[in-house]
Amino acid sequence: MEKMALHKTSSDGAGRGPEVARLTVRDLASQAGVSPMTVSRVLNKRPDVAPGTRERVEHIIAQSGFVPARAASARREGRHGLVDLVVPALDTAYSLEIARGVEAALEPTGFRLVLSCTHSSSRDLARQERMWLAKLSQGRTDGAILVLYAEQSRRLGELRRRHIPFVVVDPVGDLGPDVPSVGATNWAGARAATEYLLSLGHSRVAFIGGPLQQLCAAERLSGYRSALDAASVPEVPELVRPGNFMDDMGYKQTLALMELADPPTAIFAGSDSQALGAYAALRELAKRVPEDVSVVGFDDTLLAPLVTPALTTVRQPLAEMGRFAVRDLLRLLDGKPLSSMRVQLATTLVIRSSCAPPGRGS
Amino acid sequence: MEKMALHKTSSDGAGRGPEVARLTVRDLASQAGVSPMTVSRVLNKRPDVAPGTRERVEHIIAQSGFVPARAASARREGRHGLVDLVVPALDTAYSLEIARGVEAALEPTGFRLVLSCTHSSSRDLARQERMWLAKLSQGRTDGAILVLYAEQSRRLGELRRRHIPFVVVDPVGDLGPDVPSVGATNWAGARAATEYLLSLGHSRVAFIGGPLQQLCAAERLSGYRSALDAASVPEVPELVRPGNFMDDMGYKQTLALMELADPPTAIFAGSDSQALGAYAALRELAKRVPEDVSVVGFDDTLLAPLVTPALTTVRQPLAEMGRFAVRDLLRLLDGKPLSSMRVQLATTLVIRSSCAPPGRGS
Repeated sequence: MEKMALHKTSSDGAGRGPEVARLTVRDLASQAGVSPMTVSRVLNKRPDVAPGTRERVEHIIAQSGFVPARAASARREGRHGLVDLVVPALDTAYSLEIARGVEAALEPTGFRLVLSCTHSSSRDLARQERMWLAKLSQGRTDGAILVLYAEQSRRLGELRRRHIPFVVVDPVGDLGPDVPSVGATNWAGARAATEYLLSLGHSRVAFIGGPLQQLCAAERLSGYRSALDAASVPEVPELVRPGNFMDDMGYKQTLALMELADPPTAIFAGSDSQALGAYAALRELAKRVPEDVSVVGFDDTLLAPLVTPALTTVRQPLAEMGRFAVRDLLRLLDGKPLSSMRVQLATTLVIRSSCAPPGRGS
Repeated sequence: MEKMALHKTSSDGAGRGPEVARLTVRDLASQAGVSPMTVSRVLNKRPDVAPGTRERVEHIIAQSGFVPARAASARREGRHGLVDLVVPALDTAYSLEIARGVEAALEPTGFRLVLSCTHSSSRDLARQERMWLAKLSQGRTDGAILVLYAEQSRRLGELRRRHIPFVVVDPVGDLGPDVPSVGATNWAGARAATEYLLSLGHSRVAFIGGPLQQLCAAERLSGYRSALDAASVPEVPELVRPGNFMDDMGYKQTLALMELADPPTAIFAGSDSQALGAYAALRELAKRVPEDVSVVGFDDTLLAPLVTPALTTVRQPLAEMGRFAVRDLLRLLDGKPLSSMRVQLATTLVIRSSCAPPGRGS
C-alpha cells in the first residue's frame, strides 16, 4: 500500500470553514429565539410545534448546516445503519474504484452500503435524480457519499434541509466552504506528468483534457501550464484540447493532433480512457507507443496496467478517496466536527511503459 | 440493446427441478405432522411453540426450500426492502458489470441495493464470509443475489434455513436442482470462438482457461474441444493450458506457448484479462496481434473495446445476468414459482480487430 500524503485546503482564507457539526441545539435555539426543547421537537418531527415556529426553526437549521448525531441514535436503537453511495453510473472503472474504497471502509463499521446510480440505462436523468433524492430523503438512510456529474448545489441544499449528512467525492465545482468533500491533487498530478514528459526531452507536449467547467479538468490544465512555464516551454494553443473524459475524445483529438504540420511527440491525456483512445488513433496511423509518441494518462484505473504498452499514468487514489469520505461521514454521523471540510489526497505518477525520449521512432 | 436468447436447463432430466415456491404452509404442516397454524408460528418466530416441535418444523422447512413471501409483507408494511448483492471483490470489470445489471433492475422496484464483498482488502476470507452471512441472517435483508468464488453449499443451506431467498449468478459448481441460478452459455460461447478461429484458417489454436473445478471453465474447455472435433482438428495437449482467469496467467501461458517448437497461430483465452496478458507477452516477443498471432477473449468487459487492437471476445451478458437474477429474486419474494431454477443466457461472439488469417505476419 502506498503512503498517502494529506493536503488540507481551505476556501475561506481563514484556515477553516464553518464547522457545521460543532453547532448545538442550544445555538440553534438562540438563533431562532425559541427554547432548545422546541428545536429538539422540530428535529424529531414531533407534531407539537406551531407551524410558523416549525418553519422558522427549519429554515435556521437548513441555513446552519446543522447535522444531528443520527448514527449515535441508530446505534442506541441497536439497528444497522445504511450509508448510501450515489454514483453517476456503473459503467466505468472510476466508479468501481470509489465503490471499492467505500465498501472496504464501511465493512468493519456495521453500516451497510446502499448503492445507487443517478444515470442508469433509461437515461431519464431528471426522473432518476428525483427518485434517489426521494429515497435518500425518506429517512431510511443515515448518510450519503455522493459522486456527482454536475455541481447540484440545490440538491445538496435539499439533503441538508432534511438533516442527512453527506460527503462529496471528487467535486466537479466549488461547493462552498461548508460542504465536506474529498478530492485529489489534480493540479500537482498534471504538473508531475508534464514535468516527466519534459524531462524525457519532449518539447511539443499535447494536452487532451476534460470539460473545463469541471474543477478537476481545470486544475489539470492549470498544472500542465505550470510545468510548461517552469521549464520556459511556451504553450502552443493548437496542442491544448479539452473535451470530455471518454475514450472517443482521446481518439478524435489524437487524430487531429497528428494531422498538425508539427505534431506533438507526447500526449498527456486527462483520463486513462482518453489515453486508450489515443493508443487506438496512433495505431491506426501506424505510430508506435512509446517509440513514436509517448502517452500519459490520468486515474490509474484497472485498465492502466493491463493494456499494451502498460500505461504510465497519474494515480488518482480513488479507493482511498472513498475511504476518506467514509471516515468523514462517520465523524458527521457521530456529531463530531471535521478537521477540514475539503481534503485533497495526493496523486502520484506511476511510470510504466508508454513513454520514451522523443525521436526514438525515426 | 442486443436480443437475448434464453436457454432453460434442467438438471434432473424430468424437465424441471423441485419448485420450492409452490410449497404452501399446508404442505409443510402435513409433512411435519402439525397444524398450519404451528408452521406459521415457527415461520414468524413466535415464542408459543414447543422447542422440539419448532426444531422439527424448522428442519422440514430447511429441507423443503420453502421461501415465505417476504416482500409482499414488507410492501404491506410500507417500508422499502433491501436486496443484498454479494460479490467476491470490487476489483474487476466482471463484478462491475453484474452490479450494473442488478442496480438497473432494482432501481424501479423500490428495493434498495446493498452491496458487499466477501473478499476485501484485509484478505481474512473466513472472517469476512462469516460477517456478511451474519449481516444477511439478521433479517435486515429481503433477499440476496450471490456471486461466489467457491461452491459454498453449506453457506447456501444456512441462508435457506433462515428463509432468505437468494439467486446465484454465474455458479462455479453444480449447486443441485433446487438452487436458483443464472449463468451464461459458456460451452456455446467457447465453441463459437474456436469455430471462428478455425474458419479463419488456424489449425494450431491454443486454449488458455480458468480453473477446471469451476463449472464455467470446464464448460469453455469442453466447447473448445467440441469445435475442434467438429472440424476434425486433433486436440494437441501442449496447447491446452487451464490455470486461472487473471492477466498474469494469460501472460505466462502465452510466453510458454510461444516457446513451443511449433507455436500456436491463435490463442483463445478464457477471459478478457487473460487475453490482455497474452497481448503483453506477445508484444514482449515482438509478435503482432493479429498479424502474427490472433487472440480471442471471453467476457466482453469494458476493457475489450478500449484496448489496441480492440479485442474480439465472447460476450458474456453479465449485466443481463444481474437483471435476470433480480427478476427471479422478485418472483421468489412474491412467493411465486420460477419457471426454471437454472437459466443460461446466450453468449455472443463480438468480432473486433484481434484476429486475422494465419501467416499474415510472415
